[in-house]
Amino acid sequence: MMPWEKSFEIDPTLDKAAEVFSVKGYEATSVADLVKAMGVNRGSLYATFGNKHDLFKSVLTRFVEERQAQTLAQLEAKPDPIDAILSLFDTVVHQSVTEREQKGNLIIHAALEFPNHNEDIQAVVDRALSALEDFFLRVIEKGKKAQIIDASIDAGSAAKSLVALTVGYRVLARGAFDNDALRLVKDSSLRIIGA
Amino acid sequence: MMPWEKSFEIDPTLDKAAEVFSVKGYEATSVADLVKAMGVNRGSLYATFGNKHDLFKSVLTRFVEERQAQTLAQLEAKPDPIDAILSLFDTVVHQSVTEREQKGNLIIHAALEFPNHNEDIQAVVDRALSALEDFFLRVIEKGKKAQIIDASIDAGSAAKSLVALTVGYRVLARGAFDNDALRLVKDSSLRIIGA
Repeated sequence: MMPWEKSFEIDPTLDKAAEVFSVKGYEATSVADLVKAMGVNRGSLYATFGNKHDLFKSVLTRFVEERQAQTLAQLEAKPDPIDAILSLFDTVVHQSVTEREQKGNLIIHAALEFPNHNEDIQAVVDRALSALEDFFLRVIEKGKKAQIIDASIDAGSAAKSLVALTVGYRVLARGAFDNDALRLVKDSSLRIIGA
Repeated sequence: MMPWEKSFEIDPTLDKAAEVFSVKGYEATSVADLVKAMGVNRGSLYATFGNKHDLFKSVLTRFVEERQAQTLAQLEAKPDPIDAILSLFDTVVHQSVTEREQKGNLIIHAALEFPNHNEDIQAVVDRALSALEDFFLRVIEKGKKAQIIDASIDAGSAAKSLVALTVGYRVLARGAFDNDALRLVKDSSLRIIGA
């Protein structure tokens, strides 16, 4: 490291970048916004993280591999599959309403801004959605084995629908739906798995 | 009108603005983008539509009052309520995949960027989501009357869940889910109304 370069920790700095991208989206975020939020100078930013696209990819990949993976693993550890699914919706509300940074919207923003992104960003979005779908798949299969979820339920179809419902829920939890409305959606998510 | 002002039609010009906002979102759209897409000069834009916020509000309001209202009225005219609901999902795919302009994403972008907007934009988003919810409510009640939808279904709860599913479906139809996945989600939307 050159003596004039400011020393900084990679992970907390990526967290700051994640906050900006989550709130503003990829397109609306300027390098100036990132420099300001990350507390690094423009030269260090480019030297360490590459350009805005590279940085976004790092932030999104880190979010999917660490935070999303950890959240889903914790939920999957719950003994009751129904509880695991309902708790996922609670986590979405918690992330959208309580936390200032609203990091979960990273994936939604990336999915919406899709046509503007390169294939490598699309691949990370696909990985995030697949991880969510696989979580639902495993939980539904577990519920079917335990005879909590009806054997006639097509796990593949139900898992995809729960992904769509989760994505919509996350957008609406941002402010459009109040807590009562969100509770009703959460409860009726169980209809998708016939529970 | 001053002789140096270029004459233009309001509606097609608002359509051009809608295209830009739909693809980029509110925050990422610059006045320069709008001037270029709308084919009017900056002075005429401000004189006719006000600032970016005013213009976005006009575009969103027009979308909700005209295009969304027309689409929902057409679907509601279908004799079979199940067909009306499934056709709504087809419309979303058609708008997201086939049409270049992807105007439906206007509402999603506005809902996501919510915290950055004034109350008057929030009110238009709420109106759009209420119109969609009311559509589902009326169709479900019609289905219950016709004994196509089970009487035990809570129409209010199901309508809210279908709104969430539609919003998620629209985000995923942007490119993340392929046609097979979308078909599975569409089919299992009926589980929410117990059909």
